Amino acid sequence: MTATPSTAAPVLPRSRSVFTPLPVTSVAITGGFWAEKQTLNRDAIIPHCDHSLERVGWVENFRAALRGTLATERVGRLFTDSEIYKTMEAMAWENAREDSLDFRTRLEELAGLLEKTQQADGYLNTFYGYQGGPERYSDMDLGHELYCYGHLLQAAVAGMRAGGPETLQSVAVRVADHICDTFGPDGLQTLCGHPEIETALVELYRETGDRRYLDQAKIFIDRRGHRTLGDSMYGGRDYYQDNVPLRQADVLVGHAVRALYLAAGAIDVAVETGDEELLQKVKAQYDRTLERRTYLTGGMGSNHHGETFGEDFELPSERAYAETCASIASVHVAWRLLLATGESSYADVIERTLFNSVISSPSFDGKSFFYVNTLHRRSPGIEPEPGVPSLRRTDGTRASWFTTSCCPTNIARTLSSLGGYAATVDDTGIQIHQYLEGTIAHVIGGGRNVSLSTETAYPADGRISVRITETDGAPWSLSLRIPNWSTSPKISVNGVPVEITRGVTVVTRQWQTGDIVAIDLEVAPRFTYPDRRIDALRRSVAVECGPLVYCLESPDQPDLDLDLVELDINSPLIPSEDRDLAPGSALIRASGFVTEAQSDGLPYSSQPANPVNGRAVELIFSPYFLWANRGLSTMRVWVPTSIH
Amino acid sequence: MTATPSTAAPVLPRSRSVFTPLPVTSVAITGGFWAEKQTLNRDAIIPHCDHSLERVGWVENFRAALRGTLATERVGRLFTDSEIYKTMEAMAWENAREDSLDFRTRLEELAGLLEKTQQADGYLNTFYGYQGGPERYSDMDLGHELYCYGHLLQAAVAGMRAGGPETLQSVAVRVADHICDTFGPDGLQTLCGHPEIETALVELYRETGDRRYLDQAKIFIDRRGHRTLGDSMYGGRDYYQDNVPLRQADVLVGHAVRALYLAAGAIDVAVETGDEELLQKVKAQYDRTLERRTYLTGGMGSNHHGETFGEDFELPSERAYAETCASIASVHVAWRLLLATGESSYADVIERTLFNSVISSPSFDGKSFFYVNTLHRRSPGIEPEPGVPSLRRTDGTRASWFTTSCCPTNIARTLSSLGGYAATVDDTGIQIHQYLEGTIAHVIGGGRNVSLSTETAYPADGRISVRITETDGAPWSLSLRIPNWSTSPKISVNGVPVEITRGVTVVTRQWQTGDIVAIDLEVAPRFTYPDRRIDALRRSVAVECGPLVYCLESPDQPDLDLDLVELDINSPLIPSEDRDLAPGSALIRASGFVTEAQSDGLPYSSQPANPVNGRAVELIFSPYFLWANRGLSTMRVWVPTSIH
Repeated sequence: MTATPSTAAPVLPRSRSVFTPLPVTSVAITGGFWAEKQTLNRDAIIPHCDHSLERVGWVENFRAALRGTLATERVGRLFTDSEIYKTMEAMAWENAREDSLDFRTRLEELAGLLEKTQQADGYLNTFYGYQGGPERYSDMDLGHELYCYGHLLQAAVAGMRAGGPETLQSVAVRVADHICDTFGPDGLQTLCGHPEIETALVELYRETGDRRYLDQAKIFIDRRGHRTLGDSMYGGRDYYQDNVPLRQADVLVGHAVRALYLAAGAIDVAVETGDEELLQKVKAQYDRTLERRTYLTGGMGSNHHGETFGEDFELPSERAYAETCASIASVHVAWRLLLATGESSYADVIERTLFNSVISSPSFDGKSFFYVNTLHRRSPGIEPEPGVPSLRRTDGTRASWFTTSCCPTNIARTLSSLGGYAATVDDTGIQIHQYLEGTIAHVIGGGRNVSLSTETAYPADGRISVRITETDGAPWSLSLRIPNWSTSPKISVNGVPVEITRGVTVVTRQWQTGDIVAIDLEVAPRFTYPDRRIDALRRSVAVECGPLVYCLESPDQPDLDLDLVELDINSPLIPSEDRDLAPGSALIRASGFVTEAQSDGLPYSSQPANPVNGRAVELIFSPYFLWANRGLSTMRVWVPTSIH
Repeated sequence: MTATPSTAAPVLPRSRSVFTPLPVTSVAITGGFWAEKQTLNRDAIIPHCDHSLERVGWVENFRAALRGTLATERVGRLFTDSEIYKTMEAMAWENAREDSLDFRTRLEELAGLLEKTQQADGYLNTFYGYQGGPERYSDMDLGHELYCYGHLLQAAVAGMRAGGPETLQSVAVRVADHICDTFGPDGLQTLCGHPEIETALVELYRETGDRRYLDQAKIFIDRRGHRTLGDSMYGGRDYYQDNVPLRQADVLVGHAVRALYLAAGAIDVAVETGDEELLQKVKAQYDRTLERRTYLTGGMGSNHHGETFGEDFELPSERAYAETCASIASVHVAWRLLLATGESSYADVIERTLFNSVISSPSFDGKSFFYVNTLHRRSPGIEPEPGVPSLRRTDGTRASWFTTSCCPTNIARTLSSLGGYAATVDDTGIQIHQYLEGTIAHVIGGGRNVSLSTETAYPADGRISVRITETDGAPWSLSLRIPNWSTSPKISVNGVPVEITRGVTVVTRQWQTGDIVAIDLEVAPRFTYPDRRIDALRRSVAVECGPLVYCLESPDQPDLDLDLVELDINSPLIPSEDRDLAPGSALIRASGFVTEAQSDGLPYSSQPANPVNGRAVELIFSPYFLWANRGLSTMRVWVPTSIH
């Protein structure tokens, strides 16, 4: 038995928002870059996650709970339940895209398992709260119980929006009621070390209308920052954003995923409670984080120790942490701010983050994943031991599964709901935020049916053709994002040029079926320079092309030591299509030099290193998203240059 | 009752060595920079450590063991015993320098406590192996039992060499016998995750002559690298150097203190067993580590996560870890290589490391300590909570005590034995490695008594006057190290110039009492440039003066944002004596610019940051060793420059 779906969008504000999200059922990605990734997700990544969950025994933990044998049989770390929930969420969104009997059957099975495991008062967790195990809520700092609930609720909300099993919905409602009973105004005056429950409770409120869930989310937001949790070895109470109340903070700090999930939850609370001050505060924190604590790839969190944000401008390429989940969480925050404020720069952030930091994580076969997304690897690293869940792979190589395996399942739910981040509507019309090959069909203000289809080879090519396929003849507005890297974009309607407005160009007219909007964003390779305050990138340059960050990878220049190359920024960047590495990619040829190494004692000298004195070489840049798909390799995004 | 001291030197090879160490009783540091630090150590640091050990209950753990109440009363982390041992070692060396009834009484008391706590078979640990506690040797990866023994043995060896309590010696011998019984060829085929026992067993062999201890040390060296220990989340088995046998490794990897203690132990084993191949292998690893993995301060270990070495040339200033204990361990390795090979460059390393990384750790009042010795602090950090043992202070500020408090006690034992690292003898005469104000009196080859005294204001001034105060009229050689930074040194004997040989200048003559050797190393400020492969330092310059690394610290330029300054390397560096900050220090004035910050979205742009366009400013450099003694501050060692 399945519920009647509402709107199958990953975020669905009830109250204040400038734009209204479109459900994944309204946006079909039919070809090109992201269609291939969605196919990979459906055919490889989600099945890989599901099989891995059984292989390592994390689903079996629920069966052990039913057998009453958890005390002796439980396997995995304390938050493994959450990976099952994220995989369920991915399956639910997939069903909305295109129904799958396999996924539906599996969802029913897993939901049934949860229902049977859930305790009478709604408590549900395989690590805590059973005979012989640790007590419920005995480790709020690191115990992750509410974090796990958060992902359970997210899975249930996806199910409610996408026709998932009713069982999952009823389990989630009982969990949410249990949370409100336990942690409400008269309950335990504490909070979870890992945010996630906040946004989940708001989303459940959005589906059920039960205001108590929204109130509880607000309680958790307001309760944070008062030093309730312990001093963490990973950076004190900043680690879990419990040092300073969110309303007093200036920038995101501590564990990046925690900080970003919290920000997403706070925006949700602000939107639904009409708390403009909180919204503006979190917006300012995120804006400052973008300005000072974000990698070129959109990745966030510089430090391995504590997986934390660094200081302002502390953005070293080597050992960049930039956890996959932090990139996904940043997309969550940017999307919420885009909906709430209508500022198109957040769609730029989403594009940059998806094309670079997020989609570089899964390998091309969808069976291994980066947890850490470094921007520079000096030595090729080592392959993980097969068949054993890997640790975080601090050397920045991929693994098929991790002891903390948040990244693969987070990729799965992101790709299956990706269409939900492409476009929005408001009373005036449709806003296209991401250029995907496919169709958009939706009802805009006044109950008017509007449809359009898009053809493009983006991001390899900057030309996008939008055809109006359904309209009623009355005027409406089509809003087109102009990415900030696009220096001389062109837009025409039926061949007639349209005046461009930077950021977003809005075309309002009495659209007719068959009208063609031709957009050319002029994708071309370019040099990108760092802010001078980023010490780690001084006198270095990156190459980008359209929304793609490029890198030098050793398979493209096997004879060069990437520690010793310099890029000549006075020579042109020449795109080359001579290898078909992946959809949307072109190699870029550049000129540079390779210099000689000198070593004598310490790597410091009273004489400056000679200026460029090496031999001229061709340097070949490839898109960052495809790196480490051709065996173990060295790689660098930022390349020294002798000039500037 | 006290033992009869042998030679009170911290390292005392029995077999192969080019130079023979001098005991701390033969080298009196009577004035200047290091005399002040030794006084601080005796009057403040050692008492602070001792009082802290009682205050936090780590000595009380031994009393609880006697009461049989450890199961309920034990406090502190699993390796707290080792801090008591290191403090005891410091007291033992102090007694050799100048007898102290307080220290002697305390040593007897503590040694008595150890004797009573020690179990019948020699086992001794307050965290493991008691009723209700974890089993003995149940966590070889992280349990630190043999590490704690190592420091106990080191304390006992110091006592044996410096007239310490016999009780301590007998406890240590029983511990060492227990180790050989338990982990010998027929015993547990495992090893301790934290090396330290290796060098300690060799040193105990050197004092007792019991070959079994040397053999056991060799067993531990040879047993390492075969993946006996588990996969560590801090970087796999590299973390504890158990991935590759030491004889096959090329460079130091993993946890820096572990790697360096292991290297010291391996050199000791190689020297005593005549294993030239092992010696050369470890020497090559350390040399490569100096060339590619060492900070300008001599600090080692780039990463907070796992406290590990980075890759080659991964040496970011910001968040440099450079643990105090790693610097001390590097001195241990360099000293052993100096003794074994006679290469003076290792004395250069010792000088650089002591003057910068080691002595910057204690505050000027000797009551707080850096655990982490960063080379760049962008924000002032926060003061630790008073009265509570701090975590590692990831923000790079000092604390009075740590939950892992290895650094303060390691500083204590290093300063009290410092004289032992200043000079050596061989059959031909005396070698001066470090220039200290004081006296050296020792017996050289042929049983000849030789004494000399040194006057100097080094390192503030490069002039050193050595006076021969006792000699027999027959020729002998005085070897004088020429630091590698000294570009035009001058040496004269009784006013007659001596020909300089780079590295070491040896003066052989029929010395007379009253002969004066005048050395001028010409201490003057200079710019220092990084190897081009250090990405984090590209287009940056440091200022040094003699053996001292300098830095820009905010108290000297309170109105400047150190993120936005640039140094003009075409203007002169001018030493200035207008402030008396600390012995051996002069401020240095330089010219530079301060630029404007520009922020707009992400910190990346299609246009290069403008070249220097700021206003001219004076920049004031102060010695790195005194930073963070004038309140919370920002600081940077490497400063951007627009030129080179």
